Amino acid sequence: MKKNILYAQSGGVTPVINATACGVIETARSNRDRIGKVYAGKDGIIGILREELIDTSRERKSNITALRYTPGGAFGSCRYKLKSIEESKREYERLIEVLRAHDIGYFFYNGGGDSADTAYKVSQISKKTGFPVQCIGIPKTIDNDLPITDNSPGFGSVAKYVAVSIMEASLDVESMASSSTKVFVLEVMGRHAGWIAAAAGLVAREEGDPPHVILFPEVPFKQREFLKKVKHAVENYGYCSIVVSEGVRNTRGQFLADAGTRDAFGHAQLGGVAPVVANLVREKFGYKYHWAVSDYLQRSARHIAAKVDVDQAYAVGEAAVKFALEGKSGVMPIIKRVSNNPYRWKIGEAPLSRVANREKKMPKSYITADGMGITPAARRYLAPLIRGEDYPPYDRDGLPKYAKMSKVLVQKKLPAFDV
Amino acid sequence: MKKNILYAQSGGVTPVINATACGVIETARSNRDRIGKVYAGKDGIIGILREELIDTSRERKSNITALRYTPGGAFGSCRYKLKSIEESKREYERLIEVLRAHDIGYFFYNGGGDSADTAYKVSQISKKTGFPVQCIGIPKTIDNDLPITDNSPGFGSVAKYVAVSIMEASLDVESMASSSTKVFVLEVMGRHAGWIAAAAGLVAREEGDPPHVILFPEVPFKQREFLKKVKHAVENYGYCSIVVSEGVRNTRGQFLADAGTRDAFGHAQLGGVAPVVANLVREKFGYKYHWAVSDYLQRSARHIAAKVDVDQAYAVGEAAVKFALEGKSGVMPIIKRVSNNPYRWKIGEAPLSRVANREKKMPKSYITADGMGITPAARRYLAPLIRGEDYPPYDRDGLPKYAKMSKVLVQKKLPAFDV
Repeated sequence: MKKNILYAQSGGVTPVINATACGVIETARSNRDRIGKVYAGKDGIIGILREELIDTSRERKSNITALRYTPGGAFGSCRYKLKSIEESKREYERLIEVLRAHDIGYFFYNGGGDSADTAYKVSQISKKTGFPVQCIGIPKTIDNDLPITDNSPGFGSVAKYVAVSIMEASLDVESMASSSTKVFVLEVMGRHAGWIAAAAGLVAREEGDPPHVILFPEVPFKQREFLKKVKHAVENYGYCSIVVSEGVRNTRGQFLADAGTRDAFGHAQLGGVAPVVANLVREKFGYKYHWAVSDYLQRSARHIAAKVDVDQAYAVGEAAVKFALEGKSGVMPIIKRVSNNPYRWKIGEAPLSRVANREKKMPKSYITADGMGITPAARRYLAPLIRGEDYPPYDRDGLPKYAKMSKVLVQKKLPAFDV
Repeated sequence: MKKNILYAQSGGVTPVINATACGVIETARSNRDRIGKVYAGKDGIIGILREELIDTSRERKSNITALRYTPGGAFGSCRYKLKSIEESKREYERLIEVLRAHDIGYFFYNGGGDSADTAYKVSQISKKTGFPVQCIGIPKTIDNDLPITDNSPGFGSVAKYVAVSIMEASLDVESMASSSTKVFVLEVMGRHAGWIAAAAGLVAREEGDPPHVILFPEVPFKQREFLKKVKHAVENYGYCSIVVSEGVRNTRGQFLADAGTRDAFGHAQLGGVAPVVANLVREKFGYKYHWAVSDYLQRSARHIAAKVDVDQAYAVGEAAVKFALEGKSGVMPIIKRVSNNPYRWKIGEAPLSRVANREKKMPKSYITADGMGITPAARRYLAPLIRGEDYPPYDRDGLPKYAKMSKVLVQKKLPAFDV
């Protein structure tokens, strides 16, 4: 009998995680002779534990097509980490019960390192309990911190958004700097790794191009060197454009964003790191400043996604189904870079055990000696990942036509379960 | 002898002010038999006073074409308001000297209400002194607060950016709200008028659609009603998406953004209004929140400009040259709405004296009774202004190909002048 696929999105969503869902569902639909239905966990693994499974066969074809260009997580996602098999025994057992009750032969978990870990553990339990389910992790994270894969689907689009945004805002600042704002600070995501901030550096192709300063979480913030560089930019290029990772820390290891600042009631500073950095500049030089915090805008900006990223996000979804049909388990499709010039890539394969619980750091060789810019090596790596545009269709009112799922749930067969 | 045009950009730039410059220069170039050169004030009127005039005839045709899709102010802009003719006598005299020295027959001032006022005064002085210069104001402002014109070039693109951004970010929040962030706050520009915030309301087409709350500068912030509405959204739709104008004030008339919060050193709160609003929600309900401040990103986001806006920005530049050729002075081309359905518009004409120093407020009838949403009347007005896409070209590295002017200055003929 044909087995069903159970697909779940995990952790922070990306502009293109739904393109992966699209790749899974479309590829499964074109293999109806061998695969049953594709179910999706409502709000990720929490929905699976609660036996809330969305039947994607109830979604119209046009809606599935639209997943390719719809941001957010169309079936819902969650941050819910299963611990070791011993500690989370009840959850793992429940997972297997749900998989068994709904004839799941293939479990696809679309997320970052934690999700790879969970998928790996489910594959181990599957072997142990003798309940056969093929477990495949599918990579996703805007943080680009997954090991083995050359890059993570989701990152390229955020990178493109940040690069385009700092390029545009810098043109704005430059045009008025002689009499108005001289310093602009853009805060971007990145608690531990500066991949996103680094991508902004792609804009700086010639002497004087913005951003003039990039602050990475990897580099302890040195106030004097920073201020010196800001002053140099203002004096030589008329203005200074700064990109700062949310996770920048001072030399004592504290986040700049909450380094001692309290409001009138003693509450920790509400703001992000951008206003802190901007204020340092104002206090020292009196330069007029502006700052922006892109927050979720950067993570959902499907309207300016990178075509390479969309293609790769779709391809890893498609590959997961192919791996399943080839009988594979405990693996993850990855992106392999074949060449830089011209940029070519293909889908490869990695064992989940090697993906789980390992973080890919940005190489030291990607950051310039002064700690505030990117090197040619970083540029060679990053440049291809923001290439190409892949616009969503717009309706006649000028808004994107994003998919809205009907999310019809499969009939429950098991007793309730508290999550 | 053919007279030259002097064009200057004024005040805060917009995603499409260069499209207006493009309209001026291209139309002048196609009337070479009657018009000399187009000069542009470097950094706006400050450059004119300093006799720093950019000779646009030295820019390549492809560069002029590229102005149509390049954000920022390509020749520079400034915030520099000339006062009354009596108070700023020296500046007005200097202006006339510069115009005379460079055979300027047409002075085009591209800005908001203040610039219309300056252009109007220059036209009065021209009459008084007997030095003939035709003065034409060209509308521009993201704030949409110019009178008489149906809308201001620049506004529609910012409106589209904000609408698309809140739509996308809300999809992100919605997908994770069951276990993570429940409240998202996006801060947008608008010190005095809520036009930009109102545009975000275009996304809310059906019950439950985001944004669920819009805070306008026109409506004094009432904390209890606000919190009630946030709670309702979270309980009924799973999450709450909020758009807040930077200029929102409490019932005592103080900006929420600096209502008493001080950091540990007694400095005024660094942040914007978004974190203040988000924190109110957290304190009351404990909901996890995120916030974004789009700041200059919204004002420079040419990558997602509205086609209607780009067309209108170009058209007012073109019209200025036509008005000049028709011998007009002391006027401004404006946008006239011919019909709503289908939306049709044409270029009209308004005397500068009627545009100057008057602010167009948002009609009360555009805001819902509870003060936190937009009415169908607002929707009818706003919807056409964000229609259509008009993407810039991208290079093979995935970045927009924005124009970079060579900015060759005209030889000076006058003594220096301190500005």
